[in-house]
Amino acid sequence: MNKQELFEQIMHKRSFLCVGLDTDIKKIPTHLINEENPIFSFNKAIIDATAAYCVAYKPNMAFYECMGLKGWSALEKTIRYIREKYPEQFIISDAKRGDIGNTSEMYARGFFEDLPFDAVTVAPYMGEDSVKPFLTYKGKWVILLALTSNKGSQDFQLTTDAQGERLYEKVLKKSRAWATDEQMMYVVGATQGSMFADIRKVVPNHFLLVPGIGAQGGSLAEVVKYGMNDQCGLLVNSSRQIIYAGKGKDFAVCAQTEAIKLQEEMAGYLAQLK
Amino acid sequence: MNKQELFEQIMHKRSFLCVGLDTDIKKIPTHLINEENPIFSFNKAIIDATAAYCVAYKPNMAFYECMGLKGWSALEKTIRYIREKYPEQFIISDAKRGDIGNTSEMYARGFFEDLPFDAVTVAPYMGEDSVKPFLTYKGKWVILLALTSNKGSQDFQLTTDAQGERLYEKVLKKSRAWATDEQMMYVVGATQGSMFADIRKVVPNHFLLVPGIGAQGGSLAEVVKYGMNDQCGLLVNSSRQIIYAGKGKDFAVCAQTEAIKLQEEMAGYLAQLK
Repeated sequence: MNKQELFEQIMHKRSFLCVGLDTDIKKIPTHLINEENPIFSFNKAIIDATAAYCVAYKPNMAFYECMGLKGWSALEKTIRYIREKYPEQFIISDAKRGDIGNTSEMYARGFFEDLPFDAVTVAPYMGEDSVKPFLTYKGKWVILLALTSNKGSQDFQLTTDAQGERLYEKVLKKSRAWATDEQMMYVVGATQGSMFADIRKVVPNHFLLVPGIGAQGGSLAEVVKYGMNDQCGLLVNSSRQIIYAGKGKDFAVCAQTEAIKLQEEMAGYLAQLK
Repeated sequence: MNKQELFEQIMHKRSFLCVGLDTDIKKIPTHLINEENPIFSFNKAIIDATAAYCVAYKPNMAFYECMGLKGWSALEKTIRYIREKYPEQFIISDAKRGDIGNTSEMYARGFFEDLPFDAVTVAPYMGEDSVKPFLTYKGKWVILLALTSNKGSQDFQLTTDAQGERLYEKVLKKSRAWATDEQMMYVVGATQGSMFADIRKVVPNHFLLVPGIGAQGGSLAEVVKYGMNDQCGLLVNSSRQIIYAGKGKDFAVCAQTEAIKLQEEMAGYLAQLK
């Protein structure tokens, strides 16, 4: 999916919501446990209930990997289900990978050839040659970690170099040369709203994937105020707040209600773009 | 496995070799392709041929993930095979993970509960709370990326802050407070031999996992000169040089020959410790 198509989806659905599929077997409703593939059953219900209100899904790889073969199977089924039934959805592998070139090549092969993801999150610590192998696939995206939403983001990302530049700013500036805004997005944590203004000075046109709304404590209004650009430029993720909104048999309806709440708020912000 | 046990294995085998299982279906001998699980068949032969000459194995997760369910199955079989037949081996998941706390918890659950790994490589970009969940397992290790062996390591790892400290040095210093040398090791790339001296000033007692010998161009003599401490303190990895030493039916013998070459060189260096 290219940038223009993503923007059109956003305007069509009046939503820039990404639903994070951080599906934990220990947290899903108990009546699903006896199903053949409980994780997939849960995801399928969540997806059917929310697809009209979001433009992207983001399975978090950790939650599937930790279950071994069963988890991997649930992941594959989930991705293929979205791809088939909701082909307009942008699917992100939240993997935070990054390794030497020949290894990143293998990760890219996995996410973009073996599985039909549109994008993968990548960690910048190992530099250019750890990121580039993901950029050789036409129409596929790298979403590079810049400023994350967790407490530990302060440990290294905010380190200031001798020229007064913070590490996450250096990541933005260097990586702009590796790919255009048609192939690269950035992860920018929503708990640090005021920093969006600084970030937009460096990357005015790129899409930003914003985790940290809801359970992680960020404010959507603030993200929009400082982060939205004339092509929206935002994918705002919510995981736990949506998928665990209900614990009973009506969990999918509860998830839908939460997704609609966010979509309606987003529709208001998007109306300003017209 | 604790640090003392690892050191004893090293002295017993007179080797600090780690064999990297970066097994690529496109590179294994063609006669294996028709086996039920070619990747596992390859790994099993390599392991049986090299176990006497190394103290650790390091499957690179990318090479298994990129094959989906088949890859994951080969990985599980490989790890369980090593654990059962060669329980004295230290098994490292080369995963370079790192995410917000609740996600790192899931990765830790996968590597340390679902699979019997001893250690996992972790990327430091997201800071303390992305690393700590891996440290809650007694006897298990985090191997944190410090200075890597690829060209891109220069992009951010060598950035100097206002106090003249490089990013990888900051990673070493901060993370020393997160765990002792009984639970933490560091990845230090072997192509930058002279930097081992600087690193030893900061972490004199920690084990260092050193990739980059062989195909990546590092010199073992230089690594030992600057990096060895009185408990060895080194695990030196070789992947391609060993596992792809032969392309025919004698591939395991060729791998063994390469492993022996490295082990014999290592035995010489270890003799200095006595």
